[in-house]
Amino acid sequence: MSIAQNTETAARLRCIFCGAAPDCAGQDFRCTACGDLLEFVFPGWISDSPAFDPAALKSLWLNRRTSRNPLDQSGVWRFRELLPHIPNPEEHVITLREGNTPLYRLPRCARATGVENLHAKHQGMNPTASFKDTGMTVAASSAHQQEFRWVACASTGNTSASMAAYAARGNMHSLVLIPDGKISWGKLSQSLDYGALTCQLRTDFDGCVRILNELVRQRPVYLLNSVNPYRIEGQKTAAIELMEQLAWEPPDHIIVPGGNLGNSSAIGKALLEMRELKLITRLPKLSIIQAHGANPFYRSVREFGGKKLEPMTADTLATAIRIGNPASWKKALRVLQATGGEVEEVSEVEIAAAKAEIGADGIGCEPASAVTLAGLKKLRRSGFVKSGEAVVLILTGHLLKDPDFTIKFHRGDLFAGTGDAAEAVQAKSLQHAPVVLDADLGAVIAAVDAAERNS
Amino acid sequence: MSIAQNTETAARLRCIFCGAAPDCAGQDFRCTACGDLLEFVFPGWISDSPAFDPAALKSLWLNRRTSRNPLDQSGVWRFRELLPHIPNPEEHVITLREGNTPLYRLPRCARATGVENLHAKHQGMNPTASFKDTGMTVAASSAHQQEFRWVACASTGNTSASMAAYAARGNMHSLVLIPDGKISWGKLSQSLDYGALTCQLRTDFDGCVRILNELVRQRPVYLLNSVNPYRIEGQKTAAIELMEQLAWEPPDHIIVPGGNLGNSSAIGKALLEMRELKLITRLPKLSIIQAHGANPFYRSVREFGGKKLEPMTADTLATAIRIGNPASWKKALRVLQATGGEVEEVSEVEIAAAKAEIGADGIGCEPASAVTLAGLKKLRRSGFVKSGEAVVLILTGHLLKDPDFTIKFHRGDLFAGTGDAAEAVQAKSLQHAPVVLDADLGAVIAAVDAAERNS
Repeated sequence: MSIAQNTETAARLRCIFCGAAPDCAGQDFRCTACGDLLEFVFPGWISDSPAFDPAALKSLWLNRRTSRNPLDQSGVWRFRELLPHIPNPEEHVITLREGNTPLYRLPRCARATGVENLHAKHQGMNPTASFKDTGMTVAASSAHQQEFRWVACASTGNTSASMAAYAARGNMHSLVLIPDGKISWGKLSQSLDYGALTCQLRTDFDGCVRILNELVRQRPVYLLNSVNPYRIEGQKTAAIELMEQLAWEPPDHIIVPGGNLGNSSAIGKALLEMRELKLITRLPKLSIIQAHGANPFYRSVREFGGKKLEPMTADTLATAIRIGNPASWKKALRVLQATGGEVEEVSEVEIAAAKAEIGADGIGCEPASAVTLAGLKKLRRSGFVKSGEAVVLILTGHLLKDPDFTIKFHRGDLFAGTGDAAEAVQAKSLQHAPVVLDADLGAVIAAVDAAERNS
Repeated sequence: MSIAQNTETAARLRCIFCGAAPDCAGQDFRCTACGDLLEFVFPGWISDSPAFDPAALKSLWLNRRTSRNPLDQSGVWRFRELLPHIPNPEEHVITLREGNTPLYRLPRCARATGVENLHAKHQGMNPTASFKDTGMTVAASSAHQQEFRWVACASTGNTSASMAAYAARGNMHSLVLIPDGKISWGKLSQSLDYGALTCQLRTDFDGCVRILNELVRQRPVYLLNSVNPYRIEGQKTAAIELMEQLAWEPPDHIIVPGGNLGNSSAIGKALLEMRELKLITRLPKLSIIQAHGANPFYRSVREFGGKKLEPMTADTLATAIRIGNPASWKKALRVLQATGGEVEEVSEVEIAAAKAEIGADGIGCEPASAVTLAGLKKLRRSGFVKSGEAVVLILTGHLLKDPDFTIKFHRGDLFAGTGDAAEAVQAKSLQHAPVVLDADLGAVIAAVDAAERNS
């Protein structure tokens, strides 16, 4: 089943701003003409030909689920017809069996929001526990195919964890650059375990990015920050897999957390490409939710009509989206406009309450993921989402990425001493700290009865 | 495809010691005649009939992978022909899409151990990040089918996390009993997120179990500790799925961490049942590895020929197997003997080194999982495992279950101040703590070059 005239040459890089089409990307993945981001386009796709059969493609992808080929078992490479081609994939593709993530109904959240048809696609169920793996398998494989011995990124969180795992798997060295003094040991445990070289630089985050860009120009080190367009391609597969799980019947809304905006861009790109290939016949509205303390994209759209983005100093407990200058904001703006989606911002207390509500449905996620439910509530109030519509929330990271947040929330310590004290009362009913009791059956029974009464 | 004369009545409970066959289990899942554990047996299986076709069963299970039925998408319920029947499964089965865990090659560990054909089955890739989910889906579904409103366990770790998730998913309340003062907040973050009622009792762990057993006799609360035989049944599916992944060609060895010994028992039970049903034609040797500081089963076998087990005060950093009085030791002894497996014990430093070596292969696991690789090294040295043999390690929990261990190891703090200082040198070469540098390209390049030289 081929959908391209020549799969080997089907994918081309193009600048998202000036349209320049470089033959190959520079080491920093920036347009040499204007400095903007690059993206993959597929001019060779022959979806207009009568020979092209979307049903055959769907059937091919489904049947790969019964295969023992590692490429087919990956929830990313199973959809390789829509990805840049990696020559000799058996040799070069680095896979940890990423993707294949569950789609869950959220019955309690559905009742709470009045949206009966509500699902969550949990990208936190990836091997390193965040959605980053789906993009990393593609970008790391590209590095391997190009025979790089070193890969690198500036990140203290999910990206470095994912990069270090795929680098180790592909027998490559990995380098993590982080600002000195802003190290989060918990977040780094994964990079350390997978053997990354971690350098704390006496500078800020932008300083790390600057050194990294110099490094990749001077040394054969492959850049795996989110400007790498291979990562966006891999992250597309979450949307393809979602459509397959919904029997190719798109929901009315897909709601995505907005941080660096690479994920929103990827999911939107997949939706547009699937429509082009007649895999789906209509587009869901893709909406993007940011934390109030890290809302440069929200302000760009609401205040400046998307004409510019003012970087800010980001501050939110949802660390995975604590980003003040999102690299992919122009790509995200394009999919927002193309799908007719909305932007929203939510408060810290709204995030914490939404996370607890998702947890009460038996689904654990990190705080950044919970902005989707908090945003849905606001989109319901504004009337943008209607009760009869089908909604899918994209959860991006696992609960275990940030256990401290959960513990502090339930102990009532999360908003202690902050100006949010009044708002915090709203979340109080969702908290259930441990109770200390004598080793006495009657005391336990009394606690059980009290919990039953309060439920 | 039926393998029983009557699937509705195929599963029967039987006491593992006296053979008594109660019609239904008591609330504490103990034999009313002798007090020992119960297990499920399947007297209705008709594997001797010419009408029974193992190949058809394998094909049925494989094809379920392409189904959208939630039961088929579960890596547990996909194999429901080998599980106790739950009436009205569409209504009562609580699933989080557990199972479906990856089987990874371990190329570096293979070189280090001289076992070329070495795989790890990573049960830490389950929804709540440990193998407990595979058993919990079956036991929690049974509770739901029996219309319990409350489920309970005594545990501070992986069991309570899994129980709380499935209870929330099934709209049941969950109760966690833990000894006061021995609370590990990190481990409890999942139970809190999923809304469990957590009671810290002023007693020790045995005291908690005693109160729990009283509670389930007096109140309609369903016991989800590991004595619950439904949990063992669900955990069997890891072995069935493994055989499918290996094209039903059993490895020579399966190596399992030994804590409470329910998991070893389940995997061994599955192997014996698969041979009975002619799904496999020979048995792998199932070996069980304990931490030296929590080695009651190792001592039982080595010192007492399995005739008795002396409980001990357990002490190991591999908290998931820090168990001094394992509930399922008789079941585990039976499968050890039936498969011709071996027991081994490993030191704290051996565990930490093995965990880092698995990490260097791009696979993150919790410390308890790493005893398998550490044990394999000893079994190689003793000659029990030969270089040409095929070996599968069962990894039971995800790296993110215990990030502190990883951080302390790489910073060199794990064995600081302990008597293990000399041994710790052995693990030193695997450590790579972050380095602090000026924001200078030359400094970063020097660090990269140094890392390259040392690799």
